[in-house]
Amino acid sequence: MSKEKVQIFDTTLRDGEQVPGCKLDTQQKLVIASRLDQLGVDVIEAGFPISSPGDFKSVSEIAQIVKNATVCGLTRAVEKDIEVAAEAIRNARRPRIHTGIGTSDSHIKYKFNSNREKVLERAVAAVKYAKRFVEDVEFYAEDAGRTDNEYLARVCEAVIKAGATVLNIPDTTGYCLPEEYGAKMKYLRENVRGIDKAILSCHCHNDLGLATANSIAGVINGARQIECTINGIGERAGNTSLEEVVMILRQHPYLNLDTDIDSTLLFDTSQMVSQKMGMPVQPNKAIVGSNAFAHSSGIHQDGVIKKRETYEIINPEDVGVTESSIVLTARSGRAALAYRAKKVGYELTKVQLDEVYKEFLKFADRKKEIVDEDIHQIVESSSIEIENVA
Amino acid sequence: MSKEKVQIFDTTLRDGEQVPGCKLDTQQKLVIASRLDQLGVDVIEAGFPISSPGDFKSVSEIAQIVKNATVCGLTRAVEKDIEVAAEAIRNARRPRIHTGIGTSDSHIKYKFNSNREKVLERAVAAVKYAKRFVEDVEFYAEDAGRTDNEYLARVCEAVIKAGATVLNIPDTTGYCLPEEYGAKMKYLRENVRGIDKAILSCHCHNDLGLATANSIAGVINGARQIECTINGIGERAGNTSLEEVVMILRQHPYLNLDTDIDSTLLFDTSQMVSQKMGMPVQPNKAIVGSNAFAHSSGIHQDGVIKKRETYEIINPEDVGVTESSIVLTARSGRAALAYRAKKVGYELTKVQLDEVYKEFLKFADRKKEIVDEDIHQIVESSSIEIENVA
Repeated sequence: MSKEKVQIFDTTLRDGEQVPGCKLDTQQKLVIASRLDQLGVDVIEAGFPISSPGDFKSVSEIAQIVKNATVCGLTRAVEKDIEVAAEAIRNARRPRIHTGIGTSDSHIKYKFNSNREKVLERAVAAVKYAKRFVEDVEFYAEDAGRTDNEYLARVCEAVIKAGATVLNIPDTTGYCLPEEYGAKMKYLRENVRGIDKAILSCHCHNDLGLATANSIAGVINGARQIECTINGIGERAGNTSLEEVVMILRQHPYLNLDTDIDSTLLFDTSQMVSQKMGMPVQPNKAIVGSNAFAHSSGIHQDGVIKKRETYEIINPEDVGVTESSIVLTARSGRAALAYRAKKVGYELTKVQLDEVYKEFLKFADRKKEIVDEDIHQIVESSSIEIENVA
Repeated sequence: MSKEKVQIFDTTLRDGEQVPGCKLDTQQKLVIASRLDQLGVDVIEAGFPISSPGDFKSVSEIAQIVKNATVCGLTRAVEKDIEVAAEAIRNARRPRIHTGIGTSDSHIKYKFNSNREKVLERAVAAVKYAKRFVEDVEFYAEDAGRTDNEYLARVCEAVIKAGATVLNIPDTTGYCLPEEYGAKMKYLRENVRGIDKAILSCHCHNDLGLATANSIAGVINGARQIECTINGIGERAGNTSLEEVVMILRQHPYLNLDTDIDSTLLFDTSQMVSQKMGMPVQPNKAIVGSNAFAHSSGIHQDGVIKKRETYEIINPEDVGVTESSIVLTARSGRAALAYRAKKVGYELTKVQLDEVYKEFLKFADRKKEIVDEDIHQIVESSSIEIENVA
């Protein structure tokens, strides 16, 4: 059975770049855009052209070099924004304008000092205006996560009628639980007339650590686009991690959903974005952290050595990591020690291993990590004669 | 209506400490344990006593200093392990032994070269043996996430009969989706005879970025303990983040679940654990990252300044962060600039703001971040006379 495709909308260069202290210059953005294109993302949100002359320039240059992906520019529901974005993406092979407005009562009241009807009118007007410039217009209902479903459905219906091709349902504050966000998508699939003419899109934030789970709940309930960033980078606690949603769909084939991402480029792309942004990836980051495939406990190492799938669900090579790192610490067991000792030339019998292991524990309690040179010293310190056969 | 309590089982010092390269010494562990006690965790898993003499010593010293929390030691389903753990926690006010065995077919076959009946017998024997030493015995069904539900229910029923007080259902490989993990808990609640005599516990790993969502799905479906670590630290992609699950329950009062955690200590505790372990927390980490409450985009800053709740669901003070950091970059808008300018002494009129903003954008395109001193220079460079009233 062929799988249904989930589009990957990468916003590393727009929402991702909104991180305090990590503004990229145009040249760096071009290198990242080109890599995203190679990675196989469907849409690259390149920036927010009206926000600054530098941003306009970046979007416009990215539009010229991207070969396969759609190139998208963000706007508010403001004519001037839309004109400037249209100009910036003019040379893209596949241009998209991403326009929208806040739809939650909190946004309508405190941000716009307006009311539901007026906001609905502005939404429709913005989409219609954007359609003058491009065919592909995505609409975002900002703070959709806290927007009343009935009103949200009315807004969606109206903007589809105005020509919107994609409906972005952002959980702007990262408040939703997966069940709730999934139910919102389901409600829209079932209650918006003309919904088949547009693609529903998940845009989640990670304030409570739920962006990935919410996006997956979204696609399980009918969305077919996920907006995400490399390393989950973004303002506050960031956006949905591209690498996580891609690998979840790949690891759960029964969902019958997949993306066009070349997963073997994930680790390298993560490193590239982290370095260019100057934003470190924590060692325990899922999929792309330096420890993501490292085992140190004895129980686990023993299991992995016997059969990788005992503890690792992802083959590290599938995400571009060449080998599971086996790191020895005081938590490591005999099997891990024997494995590493063999690598550096010692074939230990059971009796020898017992002796060396005693010595190893003394070392490991003093030292944080045991490296190859230490193993020679440990073997020599043990009270038994062992030959190196390397 | 009073809320149902979810117990927080902190395993920072056991599963968390199994991170390559971040072994803590006994003194550091004592400081962390004491802080966890103050934070209000219900259980501190202090270590795996049989694994090394250093670990035994740490568990035993922690058992002596912890005032309120239960102190727990990990064991395999092996008599010697259980004896050593019992010895290590002997002086705890509330001692618990945590024993168990792998129950998935993969673990039974490749790790133990055994069969389901024999593994069930070992599980029961281990719990009975542990009960000789302590009243409070938690049983883990390792790799429960990939264990057939019917067999898992049989194991749970048998160990409850043998005296287990808590049933830990680990998603050892981090494979489950939230729906799936929640359904497993529901299945156990509905199909294990005597389930009311024990507490179901969530123990999730973050290999696919779903540990937090899975734990929440678990408690929504009847579990009443979450096993987690500060900063989500742990082997590979780590464990469930304590700070995330605690704040999710607090932010969703309608779930009618809560913990005893003093959330105002979360940020400080995160920093302490990060420093002592030498494991950095990425800036975009939920709740405790340095950017978790920082806004740089103009749209967002404008919203936050008008009303914090527009973009922030958590009051930073509730997790011990004293102020939302407003950082200025080329993405920042007029409202953010005016706000910061006012802080350093300039009350800008609309016309003045327009002029200063133009100058600001030129600066911001060159410089990654605009700090207070820059604002004086920007104001002075603008083509308009402005007085500082500070």
